[in-house]
Amino acid sequence: MTDVKHMKWWGWGLEGVGFHFEDKPDFAPFVQKAVALDISVPPVPPLSFDELTVEPPRITASFEAELVSIVGASHSTTDDMARVVHTYGKSIRDLLRVRRNEIARVPDVVVYPADEAEVQRIVDAVVTEGAVLIPFGGGSNIAGSLEPLADEKRTIVSLDLGRLRRVLDIDEGSGLARIQAGAQGPDLEEQLNARGWTLGHFPDSFTHSTLGGWVATRSSGMQSDKYGDIADIARGLRMVRPGTVVVLRPLPSTSTGPSVREMIIGSEGRLGVITEVTVQVHRQPAVREVQAYFFPNWKAGLAAMHEISESDASPSITRVSDARESGFSLATRKESKGVSSFVTKTLMSVLQRRGWVLEDMCLSFIGFEGSSSHVSYEKKLVSKIVRKHGGLGVGKGPGALYDQKKFDTPYLRDFLLDRGAAADVSETAAPWSKLQKVYDDTVAAANKAYDALGVHGWIMCHLSHSYHSGACLYFTFAFVHGDDPIAQYEVVKSSIQQAFIDAGGTLSHHHAVGVEHSPWMEQDISAGGVALMQGLFDAADPGQQFNPGKILGTPITPEEVADRVAHAPRAGTPAH
Amino acid sequence: MTDVKHMKWWGWGLEGVGFHFEDKPDFAPFVQKAVALDISVPPVPPLSFDELTVEPPRITASFEAELVSIVGASHSTTDDMARVVHTYGKSIRDLLRVRRNEIARVPDVVVYPADEAEVQRIVDAVVTEGAVLIPFGGGSNIAGSLEPLADEKRTIVSLDLGRLRRVLDIDEGSGLARIQAGAQGPDLEEQLNARGWTLGHFPDSFTHSTLGGWVATRSSGMQSDKYGDIADIARGLRMVRPGTVVVLRPLPSTSTGPSVREMIIGSEGRLGVITEVTVQVHRQPAVREVQAYFFPNWKAGLAAMHEISESDASPSITRVSDARESGFSLATRKESKGVSSFVTKTLMSVLQRRGWVLEDMCLSFIGFEGSSSHVSYEKKLVSKIVRKHGGLGVGKGPGALYDQKKFDTPYLRDFLLDRGAAADVSETAAPWSKLQKVYDDTVAAANKAYDALGVHGWIMCHLSHSYHSGACLYFTFAFVHGDDPIAQYEVVKSSIQQAFIDAGGTLSHHHAVGVEHSPWMEQDISAGGVALMQGLFDAADPGQQFNPGKILGTPITPEEVADRVAHAPRAGTPAH
Repeated sequence: MTDVKHMKWWGWGLEGVGFHFEDKPDFAPFVQKAVALDISVPPVPPLSFDELTVEPPRITASFEAELVSIVGASHSTTDDMARVVHTYGKSIRDLLRVRRNEIARVPDVVVYPADEAEVQRIVDAVVTEGAVLIPFGGGSNIAGSLEPLADEKRTIVSLDLGRLRRVLDIDEGSGLARIQAGAQGPDLEEQLNARGWTLGHFPDSFTHSTLGGWVATRSSGMQSDKYGDIADIARGLRMVRPGTVVVLRPLPSTSTGPSVREMIIGSEGRLGVITEVTVQVHRQPAVREVQAYFFPNWKAGLAAMHEISESDASPSITRVSDARESGFSLATRKESKGVSSFVTKTLMSVLQRRGWVLEDMCLSFIGFEGSSSHVSYEKKLVSKIVRKHGGLGVGKGPGALYDQKKFDTPYLRDFLLDRGAAADVSETAAPWSKLQKVYDDTVAAANKAYDALGVHGWIMCHLSHSYHSGACLYFTFAFVHGDDPIAQYEVVKSSIQQAFIDAGGTLSHHHAVGVEHSPWMEQDISAGGVALMQGLFDAADPGQQFNPGKILGTPITPEEVADRVAHAPRAGTPAH
Repeated sequence: MTDVKHMKWWGWGLEGVGFHFEDKPDFAPFVQKAVALDISVPPVPPLSFDELTVEPPRITASFEAELVSIVGASHSTTDDMARVVHTYGKSIRDLLRVRRNEIARVPDVVVYPADEAEVQRIVDAVVTEGAVLIPFGGGSNIAGSLEPLADEKRTIVSLDLGRLRRVLDIDEGSGLARIQAGAQGPDLEEQLNARGWTLGHFPDSFTHSTLGGWVATRSSGMQSDKYGDIADIARGLRMVRPGTVVVLRPLPSTSTGPSVREMIIGSEGRLGVITEVTVQVHRQPAVREVQAYFFPNWKAGLAAMHEISESDASPSITRVSDARESGFSLATRKESKGVSSFVTKTLMSVLQRRGWVLEDMCLSFIGFEGSSSHVSYEKKLVSKIVRKHGGLGVGKGPGALYDQKKFDTPYLRDFLLDRGAAADVSETAAPWSKLQKVYDDTVAAANKAYDALGVHGWIMCHLSHSYHSGACLYFTFAFVHGDDPIAQYEVVKSSIQQAFIDAGGTLSHHHAVGVEHSPWMEQDISAGGVALMQGLFDAADPGQQFNPGKILGTPITPEEVADRVAHAPRAGTPAH
């Protein structure tokens, strides 16, 4: 059978890896305070795979034989486990559904092509068969970009790019690497690092997501301030479409009409299958440092990030957490490690003597890269701005800890789910002048939703990516759910999404649209914008065979969201 | 009548402004050497407007009355001069045609709406009438993006955005300005500067081009290294389409599927009429300097620009001219001004003692912006790299001169045309590793074309915009034409375009596609890419009413270009 590895069918990451709190003394009290959950009660693990109801594959013998003739018998499967793994991404909605045996429709067959030529043959076979094709990368998507439509009658082929994972070529004279779309983060960084290069793209999903997935969903990594979003990084593309490969050569910039490159980026499989991306790569910097700072409050932290973005400084990371998330970070630190060695009682009492309210304190990480002297110069520019806004540098220790822990957060979600709590994330981007309002309104909307549900909910936030004219705010929310967790989640999630839009933010900064965010597309890009995009999809895919139903769907109105809140299922209310 | 000003119908810029050589002693010998033209012979001025054959407007009285009812009688005209001015842009092909009374088809009516509501009414009226609409900004386009199709039978409406020229709002807290699409460069900079801001977008056409035009053609300014291309600068957009306005709110970044923003950017009127753009603006820097450097040769200059782009330095301009263009710059300097005070015999003899071959010497300009200390820091980083590549700083003098002269070059074209010489420009962008080959092959292709034509031609180049993975090379070419100048021009131009593509460059870095470059679209973005774009156009404009025929047209093959060279009309050959 194929050697492509997948995440757990019921949660994040690899089997045997999970979140542990035994070595984090502040964690249990924190969770008790945040969502009124007692984590000492024994967890309820997910059901066993055998308990799932998986419908038999809907595929003709001849079509299956054709797929086998293309990829070989060991790279085409109708196995239940493979099909379930390829059904969902890893949103809280996905995890809730799979844990509750709510699987409306699974792919009928999963194929693992070896190269672009095989992808082309699969695509053409799907078109001829009148089937449906859904490309699959690492399966880390949290916007519902992967799931088949519930009422899909046609044969659904999940095309897994997992075997296309090689760095094909590095143009060392230009800083461009040609990489296959199925390469996962660690995979491609290792191949690049071996030759002294880095992509510099580190989304939270890094360990389990692919280059093709990043491109198809407009991903952004935590060092995007320096390296750019994936839309900046991806210079050349190859995408297989019926009967042809769209080939966009790597160009630093071009004036060739509406950008086909920017049509493919973010297309979530609706236009075809991305097989190869030529990306900007950078020499590994001589020095890479993540410095930690404390700000007396959120407003000061935001103002400092804004001033840094306007200044002559150009750090690789600008990140500041609100007071709640700062508290969360401190609560998940291990004993006598990282933050804790800095956040000593001594420091705290110094800050208190300065007049800081410790509950308002905000933790910030700012990254620097380059030559040793350049990093010193940049740090000096940044320090001056930090001090101007009342902030305080606390050194590299917490930054190093952040660097180590940065990809672990998704495991916490499974830990909470085992204990009846739902947690997820929503991020937006908005102009600087609107960020405070986006923040205030989003927190208020979430709390209003929690009140309507009658739950003790939690929401926290950090600013994660800065641009000249605005920034990304990244929210994490959690609550102990009742018997109808998905309906409850929808109340909270849609309240947050609507708050984003109403305050001038976008429906997502880097998590894509899928079916989770598609109801807000019209409010975000206007009906006219939706019509242009719909025209592109209809022209490119008249038979609706490529990941149909994603990105554009039935619009929601602010009134409908308000109505959802007004009729929220109270905690403990049985499913309706 | 409307107060919107236009350029000369027969050339660049305003009436009464032109290129003069009387104060430039080295110019005449330079031209003699470059294209074997004796500029002391009396010029042949363009024909008089009365000599032009302008067909009567094809418009029904009722449709004309409808347009008048929308914009008012003083803002709708079928006047011959207005219609001719709105027929062409300012490419050499355009100027040759208008000077030779070769006008196949002019717009039938020119309208000057006052606001977006009027634009919407015009667009809807055009759709209902079954007419054709061509948006018009400053008219500086050199890619044939403005001309009506020669065989167009329907009524052609030229929609001039000239009255929409206000900066509507500056969001000072975000660095975002909402500006009407018809605002020309000096107009909008003046309004922004008055409040301490700058757009930082200075294309060569700056004095006569508009914000809407920049967006519709993917413009790039000479300080793009710092401020970005217009595609980076334009964050929010409003575009009028039949029955609706596409509204894209200003966002620093977003993950909302294929980018509608990037479909509108570069759309050259094919999707609708851009009425408003929200752009990133920057505080005017405390210090702005353009430093000049000499490199011993082109290879050294290119290598230095590449190393700067990879380094920790981030200058606002990186520009280096090849030896021929450096010679041209020196030849167009005025006596005892700018360059001349630096490029003294003393300096030259110092360089010669260092072993420089003066004919190979390349002039470079590098721009710096920011606080005084930041500019010092950046200059130090850059100087080190310049020295490493054998370069030599020669101070601010020539840079200041460059800054003053930068928008004057287009006038030279008219001066040459009056004397029987055709000059034009073509630019491309390519990865760093391919630039030398792009350069060599393009120069060789132009010279081969000149040989085929039997003319003494000239081609020179500068690197004008740097990116992480590549740069823009900007070529200027000229030759004394014979009796069939357009056929001769096509031999040279298509040789250059084909060389770009063959060597890995794009058909245009920032001059757009129009009809001049559309034959190379398929070679540039592949047949599959063209099909995606055609699908978008067909869906958005099923009646082909919005600037039809632009961007996508009949493809050319490399063989056809070779054939064109093989059958080049020799100098003096009568038109065939």
